[in-house]
Amino acid sequence: MRNLTLLTDLYELTMTYGYDKLAHKDKEAVFDLFFRGSTELSYAVVAGLEQAVDYLLNIEFNQDDVDYLRSLNLFDEDFLNNLNENFKFSGDVYAMPEGTIVYPNEPILTVKAPIIQAQFVETALLCIINHQTLIATKASKIVQNTTANVMEFGLRRAQGPDAGIYGARAAIISGCSSTSNVLAGKMFNVPVSGTHAHSWVMSFPDEITAFRAYAKLFPDACLLLVDTYDTLNSGIPNAIKVFKELQAAGHKPLGIRIDSGDLAYLCNKARDMLDEAGFTDAKICASGDIDENVLLALNAQGAKIDSYGIGTKLITSYSNPSLGGVYKLAAITENGKLVPKLKISDTTVKVTNPGLKKVVRFFDNVTGKAIADLIMLKDEPLPNGEPYRIFDPENVWKEKIVVDYHVKELAIDVIKNGKLVYKLPTLQEIAAYHKVCIDQMWEQYKRITNPHIYKVDLSQKLYDLKLELLKKKGN
Amino acid sequence: MRNLTLLTDLYELTMTYGYDKLAHKDKEAVFDLFFRGSTELSYAVVAGLEQAVDYLLNIEFNQDDVDYLRSLNLFDEDFLNNLNENFKFSGDVYAMPEGTIVYPNEPILTVKAPIIQAQFVETALLCIINHQTLIATKASKIVQNTTANVMEFGLRRAQGPDAGIYGARAAIISGCSSTSNVLAGKMFNVPVSGTHAHSWVMSFPDEITAFRAYAKLFPDACLLLVDTYDTLNSGIPNAIKVFKELQAAGHKPLGIRIDSGDLAYLCNKARDMLDEAGFTDAKICASGDIDENVLLALNAQGAKIDSYGIGTKLITSYSNPSLGGVYKLAAITENGKLVPKLKISDTTVKVTNPGLKKVVRFFDNVTGKAIADLIMLKDEPLPNGEPYRIFDPENVWKEKIVVDYHVKELAIDVIKNGKLVYKLPTLQEIAAYHKVCIDQMWEQYKRITNPHIYKVDLSQKLYDLKLELLKKKGN
Repeated sequence: MRNLTLLTDLYELTMTYGYDKLAHKDKEAVFDLFFRGSTELSYAVVAGLEQAVDYLLNIEFNQDDVDYLRSLNLFDEDFLNNLNENFKFSGDVYAMPEGTIVYPNEPILTVKAPIIQAQFVETALLCIINHQTLIATKASKIVQNTTANVMEFGLRRAQGPDAGIYGARAAIISGCSSTSNVLAGKMFNVPVSGTHAHSWVMSFPDEITAFRAYAKLFPDACLLLVDTYDTLNSGIPNAIKVFKELQAAGHKPLGIRIDSGDLAYLCNKARDMLDEAGFTDAKICASGDIDENVLLALNAQGAKIDSYGIGTKLITSYSNPSLGGVYKLAAITENGKLVPKLKISDTTVKVTNPGLKKVVRFFDNVTGKAIADLIMLKDEPLPNGEPYRIFDPENVWKEKIVVDYHVKELAIDVIKNGKLVYKLPTLQEIAAYHKVCIDQMWEQYKRITNPHIYKVDLSQKLYDLKLELLKKKGN
Repeated sequence: MRNLTLLTDLYELTMTYGYDKLAHKDKEAVFDLFFRGSTELSYAVVAGLEQAVDYLLNIEFNQDDVDYLRSLNLFDEDFLNNLNENFKFSGDVYAMPEGTIVYPNEPILTVKAPIIQAQFVETALLCIINHQTLIATKASKIVQNTTANVMEFGLRRAQGPDAGIYGARAAIISGCSSTSNVLAGKMFNVPVSGTHAHSWVMSFPDEITAFRAYAKLFPDACLLLVDTYDTLNSGIPNAIKVFKELQAAGHKPLGIRIDSGDLAYLCNKARDMLDEAGFTDAKICASGDIDENVLLALNAQGAKIDSYGIGTKLITSYSNPSLGGVYKLAAITENGKLVPKLKISDTTVKVTNPGLKKVVRFFDNVTGKAIADLIMLKDEPLPNGEPYRIFDPENVWKEKIVVDYHVKELAIDVIKNGKLVYKLPTLQEIAAYHKVCIDQMWEQYKRITNPHIYKVDLSQKLYDLKLELLKKKGN
C-alpha cells in the first residue's frame, strides 16, 4: 500500500488547520458522497469502496510528509506535530456495497466523523470513488448491450497506471469477463486474456510463418490476429491452414481476432470461411474503437462476434470521462446536537439533501424488480409493506402509492469508530452481487439513449426538513 | 518506486515467450512511439519521459510475479526462471525531451533493443506517455488561451491517484503555475495552492464568522470563497468587511474566488466592488467547469479575472480523453542486418514510417520561429543551411524550398545499452524548455479551432524507402 495521505487538495489541509485551531475542532460532521444526473449518467455502478477503505484506514502523516508541509510556511508546529503523532480516521462510514446500482443524488458513501477528519478525507475519497464508479458504469453500459463476452483491453490508453489497474477492476465488477492487464489480474485474481500483436506477424518473414510459430507455442490456446496485411485474402486463409495443421496434431484452435476494418462485414465473412472449413467452434473476437453504440449497430447488422476486446472507450469512459461526484456537508454538531445543513444553489437540482440519511429501494413482490428508491432520514422507520405514498420532490403532484413490495436499505456499516466492521468481499463476489442488482433493474432504465428516469423520491420528513432549511437559507 | 513490471497486456508476455523460444529471440528491433493527428490533436506536448525511464530501468520480475505467471499455465519453467533472473532492459532509447512540441506521426520515443525486450515494454510505455502527453497537451491549450494564471485543481475528478499526480506534473510542464495536489507538490517540488471550500463557510453559524476565522488563521494568505450563499449580496460585501479588518491590522488581503454562476458578470461586478472599496490589488480567481473554449468566451467578454482554478476539463482532457498513441515496429534484424519494416493499412495515414529515423525541425534565421519538421532516416546528414526542398508526403506536388534556416534534431539519447545517459531535468527546467518551444511556434498552429496544419515532411530517402516497401506489402 502506497502512502496516499498527502493525496489531497491543499485546501483540505488549510481547513483542517482551521478546524484544529478553532473551538469546534471536535464537532462531528456528516458528509455525503454522491453524483448528479446527466444524460450520460441516469444510473451508476458503485465501485472503489475497497480502495477508499484502505485509504481511510491507512492515513498516516510520516515525518517526511510533515517536513514537506512545514516547508509551505502555512502551519504551526503544534499542528504539524499533531498530524504526525495523532491524525487517524476515527469516524464512521456507511456506504453502498460495490456493484450496487445507484441513482443521482443518492449517497454512495457517508462519512460521520470529527469535522477535522471528515473534511480532510474529501479529495482522496472523491478521486478513488469517482474514478472506479465512472468506469464500472461505462463497462455496465457496454456489457448490457451485447450478449458476447467483453474483455477489458484498455491499459495502454488509460490515464496512467492506476487508471489501468483500477479501471480493470471496475470493468470486472460490471461483468467484463477478463482483462489484458496482467498486474490487475494478479492483484485482483481475475482472468487475463490476450494473444499477439501485429508486430508479432511483422517480425516474421511472412504471415503464415508467424501463425505457425504461435500455434506451436500455444497449441491449445491459439487465437490468431488476422488483419496485419489483408484479412480476407491472407489472414483468414492462413489462419485456417494453421488450424487444420493444429487439428491434425490433435489440438483444437481457439479462433481469430479482427482489429480493423468493417467489423460486421469482416466478421460475418470470417464466420462463413471458418464454418466452411469445419471450424464452427472457432471463436471470432473483434476489437478496435468499440463502445456501447458501436455494439448496438453491430447487433442490428447481425454481426457474428463471440467476444470483444474493448480498450480506449471503456478505460477512459470516453464519452463522459468524469463522474463529477461531489462530497457535501449534510450535518454538523452545534451545541452538542447534530444539526442538518444544506448547500443552497440557484439550481434546484444542486440544492443538497440535509441530515443523516439512508436510501431504501422498493422491490415488487411479484416480479422482484426494483420499483423506486426513497431517500429518508436515518432515524425514520422503514416502509413496512403497507401501501406507501411516494412523490417526485421536483414535481410534488406526481405521486404513486406503492403496494405489494418489500424494501432494502442500500448502505451498510463499513467503518465504526475508525475500525472496519465489514468483511470486504472478493472481486468475484462483488461481480456476482452486481449481477443480482442489474437483473433487478427494468430494461427501460438501462437504455443508453433516452432511458426512462428511475424514481428517486424523498420521504415526507426529509422533504419537509429541506424546505424548512431552504426558507432559512441553509442555516 | 512501485514495481510496475507486470503493468502490461498479457499479449506482450505471450509474445515475449514466443521470441524467447524462437531462434530470433536476440534479434534487435526498433519500435517508434507516436500519435496520429485529429482535429483535437494538431500538436502535442511531450510528457512522461522521466516516468518511462524509471519504468525501463527498474524492470524486475520478482518471485511473486513469477509465481503468478506460473499460475496462468502458459509458460514453461525455463522462461519463468529466466524472467526472474535475467530479464532487464539492455537496449537504447532515443526520445524527445519533455516539454517538446511534437506533431502527428513523429516518433516521441524510439526503442532499439532485442525484440524480446522492445516488445515487452510497449504497454507500460504507452500508458505512461499517452497519459502525461495528453494532459500536457490539454493544459497547453488552456494556458495558451489566457493571460491569467492557471492553477491545476483536478485531483478529485482525476481517473485515479496516478492520473491526479502525474496529470498535475504534466499541467505544470505546459505552464500551469501551481496545483492543488499536495502529493504532487511534494513529489515534484512545485507550488501548491488552495484556500477553503463551501463546507468551511457552512460549518460556521454565518458567512462573516467563517471569513473572519479564515482571515485570523491566514492573515497574509487570505483568499475567500464568496459564492456559498449569494455572491453579490453577501459573499463579496462580507469579504470586503473582513479585508478592511485585515488591512486595519496591517495585513494585505489576497482576494476572492468565485466558483459558480455567470463568471464574466460576477467577476466584473466583484472587480468594481473591490476597487471601490480600495482593494485594487485584490485578485479575482474563477473556477468551475472551465476549459479553453470557456476562456475564449470570457476573454471576448472582457472578464476581469486574475487566475483560474481548472479541474475536470484539464485533468481528464475532457474533450478528448485519450491521446491514442501507438508503438509500432519500424525495423528488425534479419541475417544480421537491421531491415526496415512498415505496417500496411487501407488508410494511407495509418501506414507507418519504416526504419530507424530522426526528426529535424527547421527554424527561420530571422524570426527564430519553427517553419517545418522533417522525418529522416537516422543515418542521413542533417540539412546544412543550403536551400532545402521539402514536400508533403501525401500531396507530393506541394513543395517548398527552405532558405536562411538552421535545424535542430529533436530527439536525444536517453538510454544506451540499458544505462541512463541523459541527465533528467527538474520539472522547472522542463517547464522552462517548454516555454522556449511554445514561443518558437507561430500562433496559427496553436489555434484551438481550425488550426493551420504544421508541415511534417519526409526526407526523399525515407519517402522512397516507404514507397518501395509498400509495393512489396511491408516485407
